[in-house]
Amino acid sequence: MAGNTYGSVFRVTTFGESHGAAVGAVVDGCPAGLDLDVKDIQKYLDRRKPGQSRYTTARQEADEVEILSGVFEGITLGTPIALLIRNKDQRSKDYSEIKDIYRPGHADFCFDKKYGLRDYRGGGRSSGRETAGRVAAGAVALKLLSALNIEVSAFARQIGPVCVPEEKTDIRESRENPLCLPDKDSYLKASEYVDSLSKKGNSAGGIIECVVHGLPVGLGEPVFDKLDAELAKAIMSIGAVKGFEIGDGFRSAQSNGQENNDPFIIKDGEIIKESNHSGGTLGGMSDGSPLVFRAAVKPTPSISLPQKTVSSSGKERIIEIKGRHDPVIVPRAVVVVEAMTGIVLADLYLRNKLSRTGI
Amino acid sequence: MAGNTYGSVFRVTTFGESHGAAVGAVVDGCPAGLDLDVKDIQKYLDRRKPGQSRYTTARQEADEVEILSGVFEGITLGTPIALLIRNKDQRSKDYSEIKDIYRPGHADFCFDKKYGLRDYRGGGRSSGRETAGRVAAGAVALKLLSALNIEVSAFARQIGPVCVPEEKTDIRESRENPLCLPDKDSYLKASEYVDSLSKKGNSAGGIIECVVHGLPVGLGEPVFDKLDAELAKAIMSIGAVKGFEIGDGFRSAQSNGQENNDPFIIKDGEIIKESNHSGGTLGGMSDGSPLVFRAAVKPTPSISLPQKTVSSSGKERIIEIKGRHDPVIVPRAVVVVEAMTGIVLADLYLRNKLSRTGI
Amino acid sequence: MAGNTYGSVFRVTTFGESHGAAVGAVVDGCPAGLDLDVKDIQKYLDRRKPGQSRYTTARQEADEVEILSGVFEGITLGTPIALLIRNKDQRSKDYSEIKDIYRPGHADFCFDKKYGLRDYRGGGRSSGRETAGRVAAGAVALKLLSALNIEVSAFARQIGPVCVPEEKTDIRESRENPLCLPDKDSYLKASEYVDSLSKKGNSAGGIIECVVHGLPVGLGEPVFDKLDAELAKAIMSIGAVKGFEIGDGFRSAQSNGQENNDPFIIKDGEIIKESNHSGGTLGGMSDGSPLVFRAAVKPTPSISLPQKTVSSSGKERIIEIKGRHDPVIVPRAVVVVEAMTGIVLADLYLRNKLSRTGI
Amino acid sequence: MAGNTYGSVFRVTTFGESHGAAVGAVVDGCPAGLDLDVKDIQKYLDRRKPGQSRYTTARQEADEVEILSGVFEGITLGTPIALLIRNKDQRSKDYSEIKDIYRPGHADFCFDKKYGLRDYRGGGRSSGRETAGRVAAGAVALKLLSALNIEVSAFARQIGPVCVPEEKTDIRESRENPLCLPDKDSYLKASEYVDSLSKKGNSAGGIIECVVHGLPVGLGEPVFDKLDAELAKAIMSIGAVKGFEIGDGFRSAQSNGQENNDPFIIKDGEIIKESNHSGGTLGGMSDGSPLVFRAAVKPTPSISLPQKTVSSSGKERIIEIKGRHDPVIVPRAVVVVEAMTGIVLADLYLRNKLSRTGI
Repeated sequence: MAGNTYGSVFRVTTFGESHGAAVGAVVDGCPAGLDLDVKDIQKYLDRRKPGQSRYTTARQEADEVEILSGVFEGITLGTPIALLIRNKDQRSKDYSEIKDIYRPGHADFCFDKKYGLRDYRGGGRSSGRETAGRVAAGAVALKLLSALNIEVSAFARQIGPVCVPEEKTDIRESRENPLCLPDKDSYLKASEYVDSLSKKGNSAGGIIECVVHGLPVGLGEPVFDKLDAELAKAIMSIGAVKGFEIGDGFRSAQSNGQENNDPFIIKDGEIIKESNHSGGTLGGMSDGSPLVFRAAVKPTPSISLPQKTVSSSGKERIIEIKGRHDPVIVPRAVVVVEAMTGIVLADLYLRNKLSRTGI
Repeated sequence: MAGNTYGSVFRVTTFGESHGAAVGAVVDGCPAGLDLDVKDIQKYLDRRKPGQSRYTTARQEADEVEILSGVFEGITLGTPIALLIRNKDQRSKDYSEIKDIYRPGHADFCFDKKYGLRDYRGGGRSSGRETAGRVAAGAVALKLLSALNIEVSAFARQIGPVCVPEEKTDIRESRENPLCLPDKDSYLKASEYVDSLSKKGNSAGGIIECVVHGLPVGLGEPVFDKLDAELAKAIMSIGAVKGFEIGDGFRSAQSNGQENNDPFIIKDGEIIKESNHSGGTLGGMSDGSPLVFRAAVKPTPSISLPQKTVSSSGKERIIEIKGRHDPVIVPRAVVVVEAMTGIVLADLYLRNKLSRTGI
Repeated sequence: MAGNTYGSVFRVTTFGESHGAAVGAVVDGCPAGLDLDVKDIQKYLDRRKPGQSRYTTARQEADEVEILSGVFEGITLGTPIALLIRNKDQRSKDYSEIKDIYRPGHADFCFDKKYGLRDYRGGGRSSGRETAGRVAAGAVALKLLSALNIEVSAFARQIGPVCVPEEKTDIRESRENPLCLPDKDSYLKASEYVDSLSKKGNSAGGIIECVVHGLPVGLGEPVFDKLDAELAKAIMSIGAVKGFEIGDGFRSAQSNGQENNDPFIIKDGEIIKESNHSGGTLGGMSDGSPLVFRAAVKPTPSISLPQKTVSSSGKERIIEIKGRHDPVIVPRAVVVVEAMTGIVLADLYLRNKLSRTGI
Repeated sequence: MAGNTYGSVFRVTTFGESHGAAVGAVVDGCPAGLDLDVKDIQKYLDRRKPGQSRYTTARQEADEVEILSGVFEGITLGTPIALLIRNKDQRSKDYSEIKDIYRPGHADFCFDKKYGLRDYRGGGRSSGRETAGRVAAGAVALKLLSALNIEVSAFARQIGPVCVPEEKTDIRESRENPLCLPDKDSYLKASEYVDSLSKKGNSAGGIIECVVHGLPVGLGEPVFDKLDAELAKAIMSIGAVKGFEIGDGFRSAQSNGQENNDPFIIKDGEIIKESNHSGGTLGGMSDGSPLVFRAAVKPTPSISLPQKTVSSSGKERIIEIKGRHDPVIVPRAVVVVEAMTGIVLADLYLRNKLSRTGI
């Protein structure tokens, strides 16, 4: 059983190989009656698009999305919304040299073993290009959430060793610089770090943080489809993500109950938490505080430095990956994190409507 | 849509409240023909059972499992395997005081908001007792994997600030001490740490690590149901887990491509990875190296120190949680991590059988 | 991937073999806040219970159901509702003779080929006893629907050649006679028919009709999970059912568009259909008219007349099935049809709540 | 939760409105390694295509399919196969008159009530055009089955009152005449019948039969996802189908156990059934005999005769549906029945591979 569908009631199925005819997605379960324009989707795709700065691959893709179905006169019909993005700058010849060789840090070897063959052109289905379908579908989810006043914002918390301290965080700034760091000083430092690696043909990693405001209490479905569990899956399913934590995350392992528990208090007649070590979930449900989580992103595996590897016929080889690749994936992954978060939240928002009688 | 089923083809549905009649699970999709005895399941439940050391709650539960269906003359039938564990030491009166009050760090508040009511006795469905059903079902999965020579072992990598270094790790030792630490010296230090918190009515957290040997290459279903994504969900769905990482995890954010990529080499005629920064997955599929991942566990939220909170009718209160609770959840969660890992792997093992024609 | 779960959001998983420890069901996705007492379930099980008339097997089963979870102080919690029915009168020795022989009209042969083994005692999982779990779960669904003023009633439309004409149909009468026929005269005729077959060791079939009043317009999910499609699956999944039709069903094949279309009219300010050839669905959604459908039930395959068959080792044999069996399954299947209908409607009712924004 | 996906492991999601940009499907779960060419799909679409005889609508659609993903160098990759069919002859103006009026026998009224709006152009999602996506996806399934020597053939068993007797059935003939009847004499009679209705602006119904050869024993997943149950759902989900029966179907209600049971015998060393009243299933699994089932198709609801109906604003109206419509849907539905059967069987074939250990 394959795994190209995410979600239980807001269901997203993506398709497409890097150098095939197209990538895209079908969203089934978006409620009827939502205003939806192609621009609502295009604006997210534009943030993911390659070729926008020296930190992203030079591949030229307009990444223009077409809505094939499910929207009539600017309103969703309640029927499947199919979204199509044609591949254009495919340059297949660039990739012929890796036809029979397994790139370290890539899925090539596993694909061959699992499926018995692979589309070797640009990584095929395992290419980062696959995320265009996620972003298109996520944009629909984010539009649905936006109508409910739920806002999702991701940014780079850390690039390599350069970490933006909590108190310096300015999310607006993260939309201004090409590394998506929410602090200009940090950006300048990180920029030097990435450049120095990039010049050597090497690459960098980092940490993405995502914050969600406006969630009602109770989203998330115990005991398996908890909010934090679903987010972890969705985020870890993005290529290159190696870790996920919510709230204090790994730091909570060294804390103690007294410090880590968030007291409940009354404010303006509402029950709220006084602190937010939990990161916005209790018992796997949203708890009324902002949702705060982070994802660790590994360094881009495509580097031009020589690496040891083997061919598909089992011979040891040295590979130097040509062509230009993102020296750090983090900036382009930021919008993918927002998209996947949107899909998870739209799904859990709808599921929550069935939790009790009379609503 | 509720969330009490995990898995796509090896499907586990758990049920039960802490102080209801029983907890348990139904496993649908276990193949016919597997040897399965009640002892195969009981031995895992015995590791989870309360009352075994000073680090676990004094609640007395035999936790005896009954196989209600799906097994005939010691062999699985291919029909649903229903597993029943009666609740015995229910002591409901202990909990009446928290009927109208929201314990900090617990799901009480969210349950009330989501469902409009809750079984307040011992946390009801949000109790750690819910994991007995997971462990029973996980034991079936682990039996299936064991027949395939796949072995899953979890232990405590860290308790509070006491972290066992890689080179001192001895998994057998972790089965000998009540904190499940794989190093005796570390155990003694951690023991002091937990005791000092426990005496004050406070609690500790830690980090669980899990290692899997024997996986074939290719388990995991791109692009959403990747091995690491499914593990992340399964592990994050365990109460008190706040973070998940695989391989170098969060450390990889500070690494670079050259160091982080694992070279492929030929050894004894087989393609293997020379290092294992990836933790055993590439492109979301098992890559032939051991699977290595970690989960951050927060300190037990039930503490006897006074805490600020509110009542369900919206009044501020001070709560002191009586009764004995696990001062650290990590040791009992170790076997739950093994169980959930088993369920994920059994599911992905079976799913992988459908990945290509002719197998 | 096994198939013991029905439903998408109101999800029922059944378990149990005829002569194992128990049969039962887990209902996940029943909304919180529904009044539910064990009597609400027991009353449906009592209608299915064997040993109530000369038309049902003499097996003695109290069929007492226990609610293991999901209900607290008489109200559903929104958590899984586990329902347990212990097997009591198991008499395994009666069945040892069919251990190695395939009963005609039964699943024995297919079970052996599919799973490599089977629980031969009383048919194991393929026994009609399996439906006890369906009826218990269906009773929960029917309680949910009842609270919405949706009422489901099934009865025997036909036993062998004796068909109750539309104009003589009195559903209350169907609850009074053991063949569940809605007309006393028809009952007397059918009774003679069944008795004459039964005396010879032979058996009869019939047709069950089900009528649902009170459905809102719009239940059913195009294009695959249409109301009629889901009903067809649910009803055809009941053992011995060989046909399903809705509204005019097979008769509509000989009708023409002018006669078969139901005109829309205004009555009391509401849009309704003037006739109901459609049986209450248009485009796979409920259309406001009563839902009316029928199921064809084959004659009981267990007969005491000698039959040709083969043994599992491939030898031709003559089998005479001993013990008492239902000479006609229809009466006991009536409540199973109601149960499955309830499950389908509860599921589609809940799913429909997600069809558009703002509801 | 919407319902545009069919299948558990061979999963088909269709999309598209009649007069939107395109219709199509995504197939997820087709194993890697299958030879697949666009011609394998086009040949089925060509059989469904409108405008081929006087019994089908004059709408001109090339119905050319494009494979967007999942196939590389003529072989399936194990990744999603996206199939696109652009709408061309959309003529929206023809439909503007039904914008505010509910056509009898159509889904218009239910769509409006369920979703709050509808794409009124040509029925939108409820148009028969939706089946183009099913046929494209079904062609992939049928290719997979064909490689396993499983052959699926449907034809018209009956048109209005003209029923082809069993002994005259010649499936090859059904491919030669535009009513898909497997007997030329019957075709000539049926042709007169349909023409006489068509001239008056009226329409006809009929019965489709489908036969499958080559199925291994054991396909179908008790207790809910039985072979006959899944087929019933898949076939009843096709617009205009009002009944489903397998084997003797509704006739078995009047049979008795002795006559209806199929004896097992040994032939050429194999266990087979001597007769096939069951239609190829026992206990919900394929039993080695040919699968034989029938679907009742109602008369085309679009007729040009005047009909009573109401407008969306609740006013009574007379409607005369202009434009040319299929006077009988049966011939074009034949290939849709084959497609849906293919999808069901491919799904259950793959699911069956997980039924026991060691296969």
